[in-house]
Amino acid sequence: MNFAMIFRILGWMMMFEAAFMAPSGVAALVYREKAGMWLAISMVICLAAGGLMILISRPKVRRIYAREGSVICALVWFLYSIFGALPFRLSGAIPDMFDAVFETASGFTTTGASILSDVEALPHCLLFWRSFTHWVGGMGILVFVMAIIPLAAGGSTMFLMKAESPGPSVKKMVPKAGQTASILYRMYFVLTAMEMVLLVVFRMPVFDALCLTFGTAGTGGFAVLNSGLAGYTIAQQVIITVFMILFGTNFSAYYLVMTGRIREIPKISEVVTYYGIITAAIIMITVNVHGMYSNIGIAIKDAAFQVGSIITTTGYSTADFNLWPAFSKWILILLMFCGACAGSTGGGIKVSRIQVAVKTVIKELDNAIHPNNVRKIKYDGKVLEHSVLRGINVFIVAYFLTMALSILLITFDNFDLETNFTAVVATLNNIGPGLSKVGPTANYSGYSTFSTCVLIFDMIAGRLEILPVLVLFSVHTWKDGGLFSGRGKARHRVGEADEALLDEGF
Amino acid sequence: MNFAMIFRILGWMMMFEAAFMAPSGVAALVYREKAGMWLAISMVICLAAGGLMILISRPKVRRIYAREGSVICALVWFLYSIFGALPFRLSGAIPDMFDAVFETASGFTTTGASILSDVEALPHCLLFWRSFTHWVGGMGILVFVMAIIPLAAGGSTMFLMKAESPGPSVKKMVPKAGQTASILYRMYFVLTAMEMVLLVVFRMPVFDALCLTFGTAGTGGFAVLNSGLAGYTIAQQVIITVFMILFGTNFSAYYLVMTGRIREIPKISEVVTYYGIITAAIIMITVNVHGMYSNIGIAIKDAAFQVGSIITTTGYSTADFNLWPAFSKWILILLMFCGACAGSTGGGIKVSRIQVAVKTVIKELDNAIHPNNVRKIKYDGKVLEHSVLRGINVFIVAYFLTMALSILLITFDNFDLETNFTAVVATLNNIGPGLSKVGPTANYSGYSTFSTCVLIFDMIAGRLEILPVLVLFSVHTWKDGGLFSGRGKARHRVGEADEALLDEGF
Repeated sequence: MNFAMIFRILGWMMMFEAAFMAPSGVAALVYREKAGMWLAISMVICLAAGGLMILISRPKVRRIYAREGSVICALVWFLYSIFGALPFRLSGAIPDMFDAVFETASGFTTTGASILSDVEALPHCLLFWRSFTHWVGGMGILVFVMAIIPLAAGGSTMFLMKAESPGPSVKKMVPKAGQTASILYRMYFVLTAMEMVLLVVFRMPVFDALCLTFGTAGTGGFAVLNSGLAGYTIAQQVIITVFMILFGTNFSAYYLVMTGRIREIPKISEVVTYYGIITAAIIMITVNVHGMYSNIGIAIKDAAFQVGSIITTTGYSTADFNLWPAFSKWILILLMFCGACAGSTGGGIKVSRIQVAVKTVIKELDNAIHPNNVRKIKYDGKVLEHSVLRGINVFIVAYFLTMALSILLITFDNFDLETNFTAVVATLNNIGPGLSKVGPTANYSGYSTFSTCVLIFDMIAGRLEILPVLVLFSVHTWKDGGLFSGRGKARHRVGEADEALLDEGF
Repeated sequence: MNFAMIFRILGWMMMFEAAFMAPSGVAALVYREKAGMWLAISMVICLAAGGLMILISRPKVRRIYAREGSVICALVWFLYSIFGALPFRLSGAIPDMFDAVFETASGFTTTGASILSDVEALPHCLLFWRSFTHWVGGMGILVFVMAIIPLAAGGSTMFLMKAESPGPSVKKMVPKAGQTASILYRMYFVLTAMEMVLLVVFRMPVFDALCLTFGTAGTGGFAVLNSGLAGYTIAQQVIITVFMILFGTNFSAYYLVMTGRIREIPKISEVVTYYGIITAAIIMITVNVHGMYSNIGIAIKDAAFQVGSIITTTGYSTADFNLWPAFSKWILILLMFCGACAGSTGGGIKVSRIQVAVKTVIKELDNAIHPNNVRKIKYDGKVLEHSVLRGINVFIVAYFLTMALSILLITFDNFDLETNFTAVVATLNNIGPGLSKVGPTANYSGYSTFSTCVLIFDMIAGRLEILPVLVLFSVHTWKDGGLFSGRGKARHRVGEADEALLDEGF
């Protein structure tokens, strides 16, 4: 393993984290808040740590492979969460370091789960930083940095992107990784700007509009008021509903819009299914809860908001769905598992994976009835390769194993099953609120430090779609090669498998 | 599809159901109970229905294939549950027909979930019938009938067994299906007799010993006292603990014992893992709950009983584990999913499937680290074929989809999440008791008729490992071929795929 290069790239990442803190510094200046000083100190610490890492690393070989990519990818989220927590901890806004790291990891992973019971007590600059982490995390720290870092670090970065976006249907739009990132970013910026402008036009205070737009764009979910989003006007809530759903859509659809091929969008079956699921869920929940509302319009608006918020794994709420009937609650839980489209900023299992998994079951049933018909599984008109199917199956197994083990580890705090189950589901799928004691009006502060660490792990594992994080914790990753022997390097010359990875990329 | 043969075989099955009721008739005579009359009437109805089905079916071709096998296999469990419910319904012991079918399906599928709040109110002959269904269901109605029916119906029965026992590690012990069944039955009888004798030696009343042995052997779980198994002596509870675990063991191990190859048992990794999981779970739960007991020995006994009962999907209980701490409860829930060994009478996902699923994840991690190493997944020293891996993956996906949808359907009764979740888990895995309102001291009578039907479906789907039941409900099964056109038959001449099925069999 090329440890020197890993170290060097992480060093560069730390420098970028300092840069990401700068806008919050501006907020501190605007509101003349003392917490700005702690932001500045945190920036200096990030710069110093990053600079030191770059200085002491002296890579002989600049090339990195899948293994290094995977490790960098997982480590950077842990590093960002720890260093990003400094402003909260140093300023005393969140006195416990683990809670601060939880809050930051929740931000970067676009989860939106909070340990704060009184967010309004935070100074503006820290509220801004909290929401801004969503925006940075939304498109993937690495996809951003990847577009810039090749110049600086001189490595091959395709593997980073591969590890971070393993969804099956993120299509390779253009041949070069840097170019893909730049197209994605343009779309991300345009949508962000549109939402921000619309919210301000509909009279939301500018600060709230900024923060909530960051949270929507990253499908994060941190709010700036203790009442969540219930206090905003209906028009504002509707705008946010629409944008949550838009940010959960496969960005390939926007690429088609950009290139004037709007008519081809219905051919992306994931997008069609995604909107189908949303419509069905809104109708079922509205029918189920309308008795709790005096006005059917408000019932539809609340159902749509909650459905959009959960399926995109944003986690904003305008209603306490913990009080909804069991049927609506279970639909929301199913949407938590489902998640948004691949190639969007949302989390969860992803609509396309579920489509493919269902197709494998249908194929097997068909096989039982017509054993002589050998059918291939197709998706969007293309036959799916065995490696893609295997990847999806392995993901699903790893996902449920991680979930089962995580729940076991947090049961020591002796909360009820509903709380523990939904806490893990809500963090592993990067949603935010669960049910019962971690419901939309409650928060995660009740868990012990140990459980907090488990949930931090789940947020990052969920964001990276599990395998890269498991690789990080695998003994094999560290055992042979790298620092202690030459074997790893010899084994990892550019080979067929490595090239295949490049082809499969994003 | 060869409907005439399906009809004919089902007719024979009905005749056998009448025969299965006979021992309960004997119990009625011994205890001079009036309910015996209703048992006799039920037997006559089964005989008449079966005879009529055989008479009116006139199959031109006697050969059946995978598709017919799958359909028969699923239908027979529904038929047995409906006709087996007659004694309960006719005698008025269970006034509601759906409840009676639930109780009977719960018996045959060896689930042991009950809608009765006062089992002691049942006459002995019905209690006997209730427990006897466990024993019949335990080894598979079909595995039994298959050994006899070829003579009577003249069809090929290998496909029946294939559909009923799709576990990956039920090894083909001897070349002929009939012979395998006879060996399995010998082992089943011997173990049943041993437990019965031991219980009587340790002074359990003969009637209780018979019923509880049936429940243990089939890993069912119906008890004969309202207090479950808490009222029996420690020695009796220990005997039942040991036999539950023995009946959950892969029967291949007993074949090795029968043929004097005991030393080879440790080579069956499923058996080793199964005992490893049991030991670990007992230790963890004992440590967690010992504070609730005055005596560590009793704590170990209760932990062992509950662990054995849940992992083997029996569902007896000597302690109200609903009151245990969250950690122990979650371990029990994980054991509910895990289930017993393939090739045993237990249900659940099965230890070997979980082993293989974990191996696929480990292989994928290894692949991420060493992309040039192509490794095959091995199990018990053999490379697993792609079709086996695909079967396991499809099973896991179908399993979770069935679970998610079932929970959604029963939420209309508006019970809490813990009740709904564990009700489906406990029926789909053929366990019996869940937690909260369906916990070990409660029962399933609170659910509506609709939910009762959903749970009946789950019990049968779980027992048949889901796919055969889904085939039954698939439009394709009924759409082409069979009664309405000749296509089905033409397509299903003995082909390669059909022969492959024969080879893979049990």
